[in-house]
Amino acid sequence: MWSVTVFGVFIAQMSEDPREVIRLSRDWLSVQEVVDSVSSSSCGAISVFIGTTREDQVDGRKVVGLEYEAYESMVQSEFSKLCDDIRARWPSVTHVCVHHRLGWVKVGEASVVMAISSPHRHDGQLAIQHCISQLKATVPIWKKEVYDTQEASWKVNSECSWSPGPDETSSESQNLK
Amino acid sequence: MWSVTVFGVFIAQMSEDPREVIRLSRDWLSVQEVVDSVSSSSCGAISVFIGTTREDQVDGRKVVGLEYEAYESMVQSEFSKLCDDIRARWPSVTHVCVHHRLGWVKVGEASVVMAISSPHRHDGQLAIQHCISQLKATVPIWKKEVYDTQEASWKVNSECSWSPGPDETSSESQNLK
Repeated sequence: MWSVTVFGVFIAQMSEDPREVIRLSRDWLSVQEVVDSVSSSSCGAISVFIGTTREDQVDGRKVVGLEYEAYESMVQSEFSKLCDDIRARWPSVTHVCVHHRLGWVKVGEASVVMAISSPHRHDGQLAIQHCISQLKATVPIWKKEVYDTQEASWKVNSECSWSPGPDETSSESQNLK
Repeated sequence: MWSVTVFGVFIAQMSEDPREVIRLSRDWLSVQEVVDSVSSSSCGAISVFIGTTREDQVDGRKVVGLEYEAYESMVQSEFSKLCDDIRARWPSVTHVCVHHRLGWVKVGEASVVMAISSPHRHDGQLAIQHCISQLKATVPIWKKEVYDTQEASWKVNSECSWSPGPDETSSESQNLK
């Protein structure tokens, strides 16, 4: 079993100073909770991205859900680097919050919810695109597709730095039975 | 007093057929409700934008809130045109939902919450940027800034087609007392 870890980095104590939070959870993710955690009276924009399990067909098999695992001790440090990168590119970004599921995520449910607040919308909208791309590329969280045939495949994200190539489906199959 | 109107356009009856919904409301906006209304098992991505009232200083006066008004009978038709435009540019867009406040929106609260679902994230992220830009430019909803001096100014959005020029602060002041 995976443990559930909550990371909360408050760069400073005052509520309006920049906040960067990543949380790993086995529970259903609340979009409102993520949005509230980046809310600020100095911001006119909150940009949000939600990744959900999509019903898909792979080689005639139907995806019924995804299982997520993380290398938890490295998640916080990689996320901190990502936040530094975001702030270097878009200095007006105010708060960043990511909640990511671990374990079983069935079709239609959210595996990741992320929100970024900014005074104006353009910087936040660019930053949220970068945040999800780089989260997939650098933060050690993996997923396994589980099919209606009881088979499963670990998925290698083509965007990640350790990907063997451009084929996102590159994986080893395993039979769950 | 403004009335509260709920528009719901279901292009077809089946739940997985494309939905386009705009709702005007005087009540607090639920992000979760907007997200749930675009959720689909065929989608792996939900892109969201939230516009909030920002604490701002204008000519030495502090903004304490915004008042929104709409030309309600035109909102639905302009929103439908906007959805057609979005689908022409990004055909993979699945569902679109916008909830917009009318009346008083104090600092920190959301005036608009919009969500777009799509199978993959890139199209949805581009579409949500276009949706908020074009909503401001074409859908007849106006805002009045209210200051701590009891004064107020109708704001003309520089992005809208009837804007007199590039100056977003172009407005007529009125004293509320």
